Amino acid sequence: MSETTLGVVAVGNALVDVLAHATDDFIETHHAEHGMVKGAMTLIDSDRAVDLYMQMGPGLESSGGSSANTIAGYASFGGKGGFIGKVANDQLGRVFVHDIRSLLIEYDTPPLTGDIPTGRCLILVTPDAQRTMNTYLGASVELGPEDVNRGMVTSAQVTYLEGYLFDKDRAKKAFETAAQYAHEAGRKVALTLSDSFCVNRHRDDFRKLINSHIDILFANEDEIKALYEQSELPDALKAIDGDVEIAVVTRSEKGAVVLSAGEQAAVPAEPVAEVVDTTGAGDQFAAGFLYGLTEGMDLEKSAKLGAIAAAEVISHLGPRPETPLAELLEGVA
Amino acid sequence: MSETTLGVVAVGNALVDVLAHATDDFIETHHAEHGMVKGAMTLIDSDRAVDLYMQMGPGLESSGGSSANTIAGYASFGGKGGFIGKVANDQLGRVFVHDIRSLLIEYDTPPLTGDIPTGRCLILVTPDAQRTMNTYLGASVELGPEDVNRGMVTSAQVTYLEGYLFDKDRAKKAFETAAQYAHEAGRKVALTLSDSFCVNRHRDDFRKLINSHIDILFANEDEIKALYEQSELPDALKAIDGDVEIAVVTRSEKGAVVLSAGEQAAVPAEPVAEVVDTTGAGDQFAAGFLYGLTEGMDLEKSAKLGAIAAAEVISHLGPRPETPLAELLEGVA
Repeated sequence: MSETTLGVVAVGNALVDVLAHATDDFIETHHAEHGMVKGAMTLIDSDRAVDLYMQMGPGLESSGGSSANTIAGYASFGGKGGFIGKVANDQLGRVFVHDIRSLLIEYDTPPLTGDIPTGRCLILVTPDAQRTMNTYLGASVELGPEDVNRGMVTSAQVTYLEGYLFDKDRAKKAFETAAQYAHEAGRKVALTLSDSFCVNRHRDDFRKLINSHIDILFANEDEIKALYEQSELPDALKAIDGDVEIAVVTRSEKGAVVLSAGEQAAVPAEPVAEVVDTTGAGDQFAAGFLYGLTEGMDLEKSAKLGAIAAAEVISHLGPRPETPLAELLEGVA
Repeated sequence: MSETTLGVVAVGNALVDVLAHATDDFIETHHAEHGMVKGAMTLIDSDRAVDLYMQMGPGLESSGGSSANTIAGYASFGGKGGFIGKVANDQLGRVFVHDIRSLLIEYDTPPLTGDIPTGRCLILVTPDAQRTMNTYLGASVELGPEDVNRGMVTSAQVTYLEGYLFDKDRAKKAFETAAQYAHEAGRKVALTLSDSFCVNRHRDDFRKLINSHIDILFANEDEIKALYEQSELPDALKAIDGDVEIAVVTRSEKGAVVLSAGEQAAVPAEPVAEVVDTTGAGDQFAAGFLYGLTEGMDLEKSAKLGAIAAAEVISHLGPRPETPLAELLEGVA
């Protein structure tokens, strides 16, 4: 087996986030009329994206995308990462590419040409700091198997895939191709379930995939319950153990549970002065955990890094770290 | 004289800000090589904009532009405002237009067609929370006299102009046209000097303009000293008094001084838990002051509102309020 030069390569949607404050009334109205679900991610088409954007308050734009956020956090810890995901050849696409590359993350997916614009996620932050996401996938789901750079995948210890890619067939094929390349090179494959609605949309496929191809699984409490159709967490945890090498289940302010080889370890959440915006909490937990893991730390210490990264990101608006996470390693690692 | 329907109409550059953290070393290197000046605004061309952007860290995009920030703050207090400024017909232009309109600010300047993109301001925030701005003006200085909506200007109590418009001839002509329309309708004209380097570039023009056409002047300590070529603030204040009806001089953590009809009033700065980013401090001070003034408050109370708005904006990243400023009026107004 050849040497690895990257720690993690992430494969996922390349999105620009538009964050705006919103009231609970706003969410409720759009829930009734358009099926918007507080705290979850709803897929929207381009017309609805225009319409919803018009009704939103002033926005803060920044690069987003679940696994792209994770690899940004991973790089912020000092890890060497790569990213595979599709933007269009437009201004928002160039913003995304700039941000990824400025973190010294390897990235060479060619941009989409044609009329489909860069995907975006319209995020409404309510006064309780919860984020409600509305995603127009745009160019990001035009990612295809031919976009998966085999050399990049095989050079990484871990290939990290986001469940959201399952929402469109071409992107799902890219996802499967990446997993195949990684395993053929003897690397690990990690998956994040993304959200419980995504799990409900693809439950059977996810269970098959997890059984056969996933070494490391990231999920939150709702997602793991949805996956195994269990209403109680211990039952869901029992179901997952054995299906994967490592399962990481995040529980918001209750911290996280890591399962591996029949053992369980719980880590508490890190204290936060004020929760401003929960966008990116799960993504950054994965970033910290993967950094610890690829640096050879034990599971508990890796989870502690996850909790630290999650605490940083929920303390401000936006899905990626503002403080270099490497600075928060002191006294821990 | 007809009734006014707007409080303030702002005329200025329509820019999208790209905010990134940077080290002092980064600024020093670019100072030596490209004349970047810490804490000031440097004009850059499109090649330099591309080059500098490539060297910057990940960015946070949001609508900016000095007087556009002011009118956004004014609207956030609950004031009825208008804006005149030029974007291109591109994605960043649409972000700017969305943000202005979402605040219920009247805005109808037609976008520029052709190859010149929407202007942008690359802002580097150093660990001391200072912002160093690098502006590629793009479409914003293609604003011409024909873009000045006379009906909008004459319907506003105050027309607020930013000094930065003086940096290009066409935009300067638009500026003068707006001032002329306002005065012909018996309205007040306000000017912000923008920065001391801008004052140095246009000192004679500014002094002539202030003498003949400006009723309300906003400046910080450096700008007012640069305008009158005085090294001591009291001498500069003596020079301004009488030239305009009202002069508002901001002094960062020392608060502000308001001069009118030979009288001076000083207001302290509002306390701030942590200064995160000083971007927009002057713009928001003007927003609060103008809101007080157009609501009929006295000068001291108006300046207090300015201090409150400035304190809000320096407490977070970005040039516009995150908290609705109307909420901060309680117990003051």
